[in-house]
Amino acid sequence: MTRVDSRNFNQIRKIKFTRNFIKHAEGSCLIELGDTKVICTASVEESLPVFLRGKNSGWITAEYGMLPRSTETRIQRDRISGRTFEIQRLIARALRSVVDLNKLGERTVWVDCDVMQADGGTRTASITGGFIALADCLANMKEEGRIKEMPILHYLAAISVGIFEQNLILDLNYYEDCRAEIDMNVVMNSDFELVEIQGTAEKGSFSKKVLDSMHDLARLGVKEIIKAERDLLKDILVI
Amino acid sequence: MTRVDSRNFNQIRKIKFTRNFIKHAEGSCLIELGDTKVICTASVEESLPVFLRGKNSGWITAEYGMLPRSTETRIQRDRISGRTFEIQRLIARALRSVVDLNKLGERTVWVDCDVMQADGGTRTASITGGFIALADCLANMKEEGRIKEMPILHYLAAISVGIFEQNLILDLNYYEDCRAEIDMNVVMNSDFELVEIQGTAEKGSFSKKVLDSMHDLARLGVKEIIKAERDLLKDILVI
Amino acid sequence: MTRVDSRNFNQIRKIKFTRNFIKHAEGSCLIELGDTKVICTASVEESLPVFLRGKNSGWITAEYGMLPRSTETRIQRDRISGRTFEIQRLIARALRSVVDLNKLGERTVWVDCDVMQADGGTRTASITGGFIALADCLANMKEEGRIKEMPILHYLAAISVGIFEQNLILDLNYYEDCRAEIDMNVVMNSDFELVEIQGTAEKGSFSKKVLDSMHDLARLGVKEIIKAERDLLKDILVI
Amino acid sequence: MTRVDSRNFNQIRKIKFTRNFIKHAEGSCLIELGDTKVICTASVEESLPVFLRGKNSGWITAEYGMLPRSTETRIQRDRISGRTFEIQRLIARALRSVVDLNKLGERTVWVDCDVMQADGGTRTASITGGFIALADCLANMKEEGRIKEMPILHYLAAISVGIFEQNLILDLNYYEDCRAEIDMNVVMNSDFELVEIQGTAEKGSFSKKVLDSMHDLARLGVKEIIKAERDLLKDILVI
Amino acid sequence: MTRVDSRNFNQIRKIKFTRNFIKHAEGSCLIELGDTKVICTASVEESLPVFLRGKNSGWITAEYGMLPRSTETRIQRDRISGRTFEIQRLIARALRSVVDLNKLGERTVWVDCDVMQADGGTRTASITGGFIALADCLANMKEEGRIKEMPILHYLAAISVGIFEQNLILDLNYYEDCRAEIDMNVVMNSDFELVEIQGTAEKGSFSKKVLDSMHDLARLGVKEIIKAERDLLKDILVI
Amino acid sequence: MTRVDSRNFNQIRKIKFTRNFIKHAEGSCLIELGDTKVICTASVEESLPVFLRGKNSGWITAEYGMLPRSTETRIQRDRISGRTFEIQRLIARALRSVVDLNKLGERTVWVDCDVMQADGGTRTASITGGFIALADCLANMKEEGRIKEMPILHYLAAISVGIFEQNLILDLNYYEDCRAEIDMNVVMNSDFELVEIQGTAEKGSFSKKVLDSMHDLARLGVKEIIKAERDLLKDILVI
Repeated sequence: MTRVDSRNFNQIRKIKFTRNFIKHAEGSCLIELGDTKVICTASVEESLPVFLRGKNSGWITAEYGMLPRSTETRIQRDRISGRTFEIQRLIARALRSVVDLNKLGERTVWVDCDVMQADGGTRTASITGGFIALADCLANMKEEGRIKEMPILHYLAAISVGIFEQNLILDLNYYEDCRAEIDMNVVMNSDFELVEIQGTAEKGSFSKKVLDSMHDLARLGVKEIIKAERDLLKDILVI
Repeated sequence: MTRVDSRNFNQIRKIKFTRNFIKHAEGSCLIELGDTKVICTASVEESLPVFLRGKNSGWITAEYGMLPRSTETRIQRDRISGRTFEIQRLIARALRSVVDLNKLGERTVWVDCDVMQADGGTRTASITGGFIALADCLANMKEEGRIKEMPILHYLAAISVGIFEQNLILDLNYYEDCRAEIDMNVVMNSDFELVEIQGTAEKGSFSKKVLDSMHDLARLGVKEIIKAERDLLKDILVI
Repeated sequence: MTRVDSRNFNQIRKIKFTRNFIKHAEGSCLIELGDTKVICTASVEESLPVFLRGKNSGWITAEYGMLPRSTETRIQRDRISGRTFEIQRLIARALRSVVDLNKLGERTVWVDCDVMQADGGTRTASITGGFIALADCLANMKEEGRIKEMPILHYLAAISVGIFEQNLILDLNYYEDCRAEIDMNVVMNSDFELVEIQGTAEKGSFSKKVLDSMHDLARLGVKEIIKAERDLLKDILVI
Repeated sequence: MTRVDSRNFNQIRKIKFTRNFIKHAEGSCLIELGDTKVICTASVEESLPVFLRGKNSGWITAEYGMLPRSTETRIQRDRISGRTFEIQRLIARALRSVVDLNKLGERTVWVDCDVMQADGGTRTASITGGFIALADCLANMKEEGRIKEMPILHYLAAISVGIFEQNLILDLNYYEDCRAEIDMNVVMNSDFELVEIQGTAEKGSFSKKVLDSMHDLARLGVKEIIKAERDLLKDILVI
Repeated sequence: MTRVDSRNFNQIRKIKFTRNFIKHAEGSCLIELGDTKVICTASVEESLPVFLRGKNSGWITAEYGMLPRSTETRIQRDRISGRTFEIQRLIARALRSVVDLNKLGERTVWVDCDVMQADGGTRTASITGGFIALADCLANMKEEGRIKEMPILHYLAAISVGIFEQNLILDLNYYEDCRAEIDMNVVMNSDFELVEIQGTAEKGSFSKKVLDSMHDLARLGVKEIIKAERDLLKDILVI
Repeated sequence: MTRVDSRNFNQIRKIKFTRNFIKHAEGSCLIELGDTKVICTASVEESLPVFLRGKNSGWITAEYGMLPRSTETRIQRDRISGRTFEIQRLIARALRSVVDLNKLGERTVWVDCDVMQADGGTRTASITGGFIALADCLANMKEEGRIKEMPILHYLAAISVGIFEQNLILDLNYYEDCRAEIDMNVVMNSDFELVEIQGTAEKGSFSKKVLDSMHDLARLGVKEIIKAERDLLKDILVI
């Protein structure tokens, strides 16, 4: 099988990180995963949602948006779809899984992921890029003495796998995503343990054996991304 | 390990279906899964969303709600949370996976799942109960001659599994759900193939081996529920 | 005249109460008035709206909802109509009229009335069922020592009357309600004094004499319901 | 008993109508009932709501608003309260009761009642003033040949009555309205038949005998207002 | 050139102020500028928006609305257009420019401008009328001892100018406004200095020379209005 | 006077255009004006708003947004302020002024301006950048044969001027903008005629002489930007 962009089935798209892309944010990163481009920023707010106060613990929350013309057809600006809510809950959960919230203090970190250009994989790119923005934000907080040590426990990365025309493929672009029979998003940490796994049969269903294969392929993709992250963040994150 | 409600780790709660619970709906079912009670109705609308018209195919959509006092603390009526959107997208996807939409004709079936009393597993109960309501609705349509044959391809059921105090358990109630380290929802059809799998590490992460064990336990739960469904629907659904 | 469901003109539909229907609520009641079924819950909130604070008095408020498929044609979930607001104001006013709010303490009781199945008379059923849920809620509060004595001053019941094909009838079902010339809702307490009277000419107008007859017929209906309530609540309410 | 503004118990406040107050509207009227001032306009729209089309009948709908500073304390502009919905449904129902909708043709008349200054009785003033605006609007339509004859069947007026410090009073101002034990709005046509009656015990309850007295007093008030209306509209409405 | 209402190019429409038009407001004014009629009220709130607290300074904010039938075609009540926001920001900025906010104390004055009848120039009439309402409001506050001295620094007035069929004209009515090539709103204080100038080419563009001419003509209009204001407010404002 | 970023009073910030920044849009441009960065896209929709249909003319509309962390303090995502509406109306008006809408055909062009990083002048950068995106979009349409000729009549540019510590300055950055006494936005076409002029006294007022000086300085800035635009677009726009 040849993929529409000539990649091998087990090849992720070219990934590029631009740290400190937005000067106002405590941490920020432009992530480019092929033609998918997401601006991720991390912002500190010195307060907590009411239900979390007084527990000596911090919180990380995420928001996800798409610029109106990030997609082939323009999206109306005020249409926050159910998909949006689903994605921002996923991003936030994933990021919290690798942070020791007790070491964060009673504050909230807002991670905003705004898609400038969408070509499939915007949610996995948001998690990966959001992790970089968060790491930089926490490093800045440490430097300023607001926290004593980096509260990050593991590296984190996300990738999609799927079944497309009955072939297993890694990191689906938009063309593949629309046509895939099965679509799965995997979030893993640097121990290659699962943080989140969401597999959906868009058409039909899939066996346990297919689940296994998809897991293994995703693991390969995550490995490659985490390698890139280690390289990128070696100045601030030694774990 | 003994569970708070004395069940074995691999035991689902008592499940009870009341078909035709709401007289106005084309199909309806009250599902009780332990103390979780959900009213599911299926309603036919003789039109399609704009983007689906003219394709000789039908559509199934789902909505999910909770009565204000279905939970321990009253929920404000107008708070549609992100969680709601996520759940209704899941229910609808799962139901569509077992229906031949071409045989439905150019119409929409709305499946409403309203939680009267919540004690964990409301989304899996909604999928299972929604399937019963949908089957009855389609059987009625067949009897009225609006469709020629039952367009249902497989039985469908959903169940949760999790890791609670490091033990694997099936069908978490609310007490267990709040405290679980890992939480996974599995939707399977009567071929025991996966339609949807969503596993989340609420604390930490989980290995591939744990994923395998959770899958196998969920399969057991699904088997039991589908057996009950076959018994219940034997008058209308022979597949 | 024979009514569509064979009742006499002065006969109410079969009424059935299921107390403690929802386990989480401080008080709850499923009321069935013929085919009309309403879940009523009463929830205590240990605070007051801003404008009522510091007056040594409590508050009772009500909310009313309809499940999407409670009616013949599915209602869209987010459509809160003007009718809804009107009904919830009516329910709350009626309930407050029989409670000594000073004895409630500085807290709010929320009474939620959610229609599962609608067949006319949902607002009167909500008032009657809401009264039962409220009574149980207050009895629970007394037992827990949060209030010293039951603050209920009277029993309360509501019923509709109307003119249908020029005949006076009691307790209109949906079929009759849609076709009635005159429609009147009456809320009375156990002294058979009026708490609320709302008469509307859907077509034309009505004389004072007709008003008198409708009042007298409604009084009969209320008498019967209050008798049932006394029987039901004799363990907690001796007035 | 002397009332705070020196009126007798059975005396309505000075009433003043200014016809054609707003030049753009097909019909308009400024009604002043003591210090209560409401601008009423009637606007024709050559279409009907979807559910009413094709029935050879027209429709009348009403909207009610309050200017932010019409009240003692400024109201926030975007707060449409439940009370608002209740009032606009009441106004529209009352106006429809005196119009032959078949003679209106397939069009909608919008009656807007905007309170400039509120001093009690804004809903009754809106009905009375809305009737004048509607009459002028229909007369204009007749003159333009859009309808063949005036479709108005009766004059229409509304007034409040109440029990204040145990005295029966007519046409409550804001001071009385806030303190009244019982409050009743009565809408009657020129046959002195009831179109709408809404009585509420704000504190306690009231007997049938009190209902009778309130009805009779309201009838007196309506009589006086309809006399003024006949005088005002004699050029356009001969019924 | 003759204008549609026979005015000279440099003539403003008849202007009329009715002070204390609404009894509840601390200050109020009905301004009529030809057929444009705007009710302006000024209301004091003894608090400040969060971001302004603790600076020993007050705040003035404005809201602008149109009654549904103030225009030729009825406007839907809930449609707050972008135009509305633009106008209320303009009114508020203009009013703040002539008030010493430090002398106001830590409170907010809300100026509401509600258009009863629109015939062009509603935003300039709102600024002028809002100024009168504000002055009366501040005079009342001074009399009550809430402020020590009148914090008004200058008189304030606004007027429109434009190019219509290539002719320069002052104070455009609706007919002219819709057809003008250039439209400019000018707000000036009693030193004839500019507080705001907003010129827009609805068709094409305009030269600096045209800008100069429009400025000079607007100055004439402002002069005339401020003369009327001085006359009107001589009892409370001596500057 | 030395400016905080060492510019001369009459010097604009470094301006940089990246054409075709977003692959999906018919036209797009990233404009950087110093640290202000705005993504502008132009999207074609083959329909018109209802009120413009059937006039053989097209329409250009604009939307403006800010990413949550484009500013020093994070902005909540759902807060569309009045300022937003004001800016998008300004952008759209300005762009329409240089396009022959009749040559556009019955279609709408949506120009979206999304601020990635804000440092003053976001609305002027949006107009300038929006013009580039629009030009590219129209050139693409021409190439595809959807329009016969480029409907652009003039180049267009916008710049701010102001009075800061009593000095006249060009192109205010955020630091200057917050502290300026007078702030004026000027939009001009390539004939150096005014399309829009909006001057505001944030504190006090300004004389006609100051208006003249601000105009002349703005003209200088516009001249420089239009020179850059001519250079940039010489492949598609020869006017």
